[in-house]
Amino acid sequence: MRVATFSIAGERRVGLVDAGGASVAPFDLPVERAEAGVLALIDLNGAGLPRTLSPLPLAQVTLEAPIPKPRRNIFCVGKNYHEHAHEFARSGFDSSAAAGAVPKNPIIFSKVPESVIATQANVVIDPAVSAAIDYEAELAVIIGKEGRGISRENAFDHVWGYTIVNDVTARDLQGKYSQWLIGKSQDTFCPMGPWAVTRDEIDLERTGIRCFVNGELRQDSRLPLLIFDIPTIIATLSQGITLKPGDIIATGTPAGVGIGFSPPKYLKAGDTVRVEIDGIGVLENFVTERAQ
Amino acid sequence: MRVATFSIAGERRVGLVDAGGASVAPFDLPVERAEAGVLALIDLNGAGLPRTLSPLPLAQVTLEAPIPKPRRNIFCVGKNYHEHAHEFARSGFDSSAAAGAVPKNPIIFSKVPESVIATQANVVIDPAVSAAIDYEAELAVIIGKEGRGISRENAFDHVWGYTIVNDVTARDLQGKYSQWLIGKSQDTFCPMGPWAVTRDEIDLERTGIRCFVNGELRQDSRLPLLIFDIPTIIATLSQGITLKPGDIIATGTPAGVGIGFSPPKYLKAGDTVRVEIDGIGVLENFVTERAQ
Repeated sequence: MRVATFSIAGERRVGLVDAGGASVAPFDLPVERAEAGVLALIDLNGAGLPRTLSPLPLAQVTLEAPIPKPRRNIFCVGKNYHEHAHEFARSGFDSSAAAGAVPKNPIIFSKVPESVIATQANVVIDPAVSAAIDYEAELAVIIGKEGRGISRENAFDHVWGYTIVNDVTARDLQGKYSQWLIGKSQDTFCPMGPWAVTRDEIDLERTGIRCFVNGELRQDSRLPLLIFDIPTIIATLSQGITLKPGDIIATGTPAGVGIGFSPPKYLKAGDTVRVEIDGIGVLENFVTERAQ
Repeated sequence: MRVATFSIAGERRVGLVDAGGASVAPFDLPVERAEAGVLALIDLNGAGLPRTLSPLPLAQVTLEAPIPKPRRNIFCVGKNYHEHAHEFARSGFDSSAAAGAVPKNPIIFSKVPESVIATQANVVIDPAVSAAIDYEAELAVIIGKEGRGISRENAFDHVWGYTIVNDVTARDLQGKYSQWLIGKSQDTFCPMGPWAVTRDEIDLERTGIRCFVNGELRQDSRLPLLIFDIPTIIATLSQGITLKPGDIIATGTPAGVGIGFSPPKYLKAGDTVRVEIDGIGVLENFVTERAQ
């Protein structure tokens, strides 16, 4: 199923998106529980879903990020497609390059929960802070079941589903501060959506991921090309860190980011960034500039 | 004032610790608000404190971490004392060493909120995951007022107070995964306490920080020796990331950690780690081993 978090008449709701993507049927959830977005369903922990109310046309609601406020920082995997690992290592911004272009183990960093924004919302760049803002199309895994020491074999039992994340990055800050948190956690730098899908909705072996900037295809890859696959990422993270329901793990971006071009193609005010993942949908955001 | 989060008869409370550290007077807060610990006071946002009830002997309560469940990952500063920066760069585990032993800009990473434990609680090492567990005594800043683009001059206006953090680290994982999140976020790896103090309680220019393992003095430094001082850390982080009330920033550890010795002195089951900061108190934790 495809589950959207949305608002209508100033109230947040969670609902089932129909196959055609034309309508959304709100779950009959108390308003205070719907505040958590898709987390409200994950927290049911296998109990039956609430009934749905009459569908609303999607055009009449405002989509929000599926999990508008994650309970802790979003886990992210760095340099997890071969060609991207090489383009990033060449860029001069890669403080991990000394360890080799292609990592031997998953590189895990985080983005603060408050950097999350919805599809159709604005990524705000601040020229006083960074002059090198880049896009990164990524599949994000949503954890459904708590676990520690999860084996690769059991990893998908802990996956509730997926969404799309654009891991927007200030390349200059990513290099300057050595650890990547600052360059990755700037306000508005985590577009997420347009909704979440349960894990049965997509076949990872056949799923394509693309990113367009102003209609120009920049990233075009497939999920089987991940260096560290989803079971490996979950096993690595959970070895000593208990994973929690609602945790979000962005799995890394393929080649074609702005710093992969010479000269680099950074984002600027007026740009539209569109990320597509087969079986999920389209996450589209607009770039604006912060008033100085 | 010194404010402790504690439990008594299975209920969490927040209270004022007396000057002698012998008793704690619970604030008259609804039980559901006291669940947030010291955050319940920070969220008053300058409104008057609730009255206190009759003091209880500290010996009759169980101290909890002042903020038992931070609202997002704890921000941490790496290599922020000169001698420690050198000992870490020499250790072979420093994936940031290529940028030089002493950082030119603050290195910021994070620990997951669920790694927080109280004073007197157990740091659990898992020999199947890491064979190189280290201690790091640190002053932690607690943010009281939201802000973005905070100047160095105004930084302390945004500080509610301080506590002590032991930034327990799996050195082998810190090196292996390049970015430090995994090595820093293992379950139980963030002892915090024994309580929080408001910013008027300590004079940073005169404050000593020490760490003892089994009574042996390992770290002995002073807060004026921070490479990047608290105003610089707050200005750097908040340049493009909105800081929130309740945010915790661990400011870095002085020389004398286990990897500074040859051979390294890692933590092992049975050890007691005691961190002292003048004007705050003592954070003491026991090391145990996870059953295999």
